[in-house]
Amino acid sequence: MLIIITYDVSTETRAGRRRLRRVAKICEGHGQRVQKSVFECKVNLMQFEELERQLLAEIDEKEDSLRLYRLTEPVDLHVKEYGNVKSIDFDGPLIA
Amino acid sequence: MLIIITYDVSTETRAGRRRLRRVAKICEGHGQRVQKSVFECKVNLMQFEELERQLLAEIDEKEDSLRLYRLTEPVDLHVKEYGNVKSIDFDGPLIA
Repeated sequence: MLIIITYDVSTETRAGRRRLRRVAKICEGHGQRVQKSVFECKVNLMQFEELERQLLAEIDEKEDSLRLYRLTEPVDLHVKEYGNVKSIDFDGPLIA
Repeated sequence: MLIIITYDVSTETRAGRRRLRRVAKICEGHGQRVQKSVFECKVNLMQFEELERQLLAEIDEKEDSLRLYRLTEPVDLHVKEYGNVKSIDFDGPLIA
């Protein structure tokens, strides 16, 4: 199944920036980044539950927002993408 | 049908920030903001085509990314939300 993960993690604090990096890393381990805070992950039920568990262990539910959408197959009937689809490596080194 | 709209609009330029406001405004006219750049819109096919047309007229396809996901009913079987669901008014006056 295809899961769309969208999240808003507050980056006003150091802890928030750390959570953002860890959430992105978890998502990257399960799928593909399609926008800054949007990932698409092809997973089975067991992988989905593990992904969900890992993400919930990272976010601060008072500060952050996490949404998991399950898309029905065939996926290409349910997704339309426009513009600049680029995978952004926010965890990469900052170029001074 | 429920449409999930996610977008990344480059805000490095004045034109980009203007596009961001206009894209958000169009989405607000058709649905509910659930994260900074994620909206959920309940629309029929005609409304969906109009929404899509308006959004494509605003984004810069070289700079911005727009994704439209169509979710199958019943929606609550296909959405899981965690954390802080707040509607953010980015177009509101900045409080100095």
